[in-house]
Amino acid sequence: MQLLKDMIVEYGVVLPGNILKVDAFLNHQINPDLFMKMGEDFKEYFYDKGITKVLTLEVSGISMALTTAYHLGVPMVFAKKDVSKILDEEVFQAPVYSYTKGTEYQIKVSKSYLSEDDRVLIIDDFLANGQALAGLIGLCEQAGSHVAGVGIAIEKAFQDGGKRHRAAGVDIYSQARIKAFEDGQVVFED
Amino acid sequence: MQLLKDMIVEYGVVLPGNILKVDAFLNHQINPDLFMKMGEDFKEYFYDKGITKVLTLEVSGISMALTTAYHLGVPMVFAKKDVSKILDEEVFQAPVYSYTKGTEYQIKVSKSYLSEDDRVLIIDDFLANGQALAGLIGLCEQAGSHVAGVGIAIEKAFQDGGKRHRAAGVDIYSQARIKAFEDGQVVFED
Repeated sequence: MQLLKDMIVEYGVVLPGNILKVDAFLNHQINPDLFMKMGEDFKEYFYDKGITKVLTLEVSGISMALTTAYHLGVPMVFAKKDVSKILDEEVFQAPVYSYTKGTEYQIKVSKSYLSEDDRVLIIDDFLANGQALAGLIGLCEQAGSHVAGVGIAIEKAFQDGGKRHRAAGVDIYSQARIKAFEDGQVVFED
Repeated sequence: MQLLKDMIVEYGVVLPGNILKVDAFLNHQINPDLFMKMGEDFKEYFYDKGITKVLTLEVSGISMALTTAYHLGVPMVFAKKDVSKILDEEVFQAPVYSYTKGTEYQIKVSKSYLSEDDRVLIIDDFLANGQALAGLIGLCEQAGSHVAGVGIAIEKAFQDGGKRHRAAGVDIYSQARIKAFEDGQVVFED
């Protein structure tokens, strides 16, 4: 998606350790027009997949999941992060390991909002090592929901999450795929 | 706002302790059409206030702040919750006491995204004792931003947050004002 790539080039900041800071427009300050267009773009890719629900993970995925759900005309659900491993009968729950923080957390979604009748589109802001995505797919598997697709804003294609999940048969569409960071600049895949 | 009141009556659940559970459409599963209309409704109320930025607090405020910012044509910023009290030169920071959890946390927003040139519309999902709102107003004061208004989805008007902030001169518009819970039913103010 050219608009998102342009915003990354103009407002993104590349920090040491292959970290891309997009606070200015994507995950702290939000550009609503961009997000509406991102939602429209996800809809254009997934419109014929029979999506019944959009699933994301708090916090950064919420805004783009909302606009995508709006364009698709379906509800959006966001999984919640929790440190507690205590099992709760009312939720589906999956562990996610965070490489950036070096800790494991739990993601949870109420059993009321995912079912075996659902065809789910998973939306998230970043895909790198694919740990959060594995957790979200795990929630869908527990619910018996079909993962109809995955929409990602920014994929770090030099990490193996996208490759691994695609090899497992998941239909992943990323709006901006980053091949490398070179001299503080972002290099996109074609 | 009649649509929101209707949704509360149809899908809200009143729990002991004056807790209103709106997980089904407002803060876990999200109805995107409702949220777009809520954003439009906030815009209709605040359109002539010269708003330059919408400010909210993660997590539940994000979706309605986004749609409001979209309709107003301005950026949205969400403050982040953090347990750490360590001062960071790069953020504005304010303490918020949570009555439901019995603990204090910090809310933080980057100094890059609030300034003395901003006329801020604060958006949040609930207003009860007004602690979170006080924190958000505090962030604006630190930035030298003008609080041009406050938009709330659901106000528990039997608690004193709204009264106290209105007495201090804040222009608060709540889409659904709850007077009381009676026999598990919601009673709205006129």
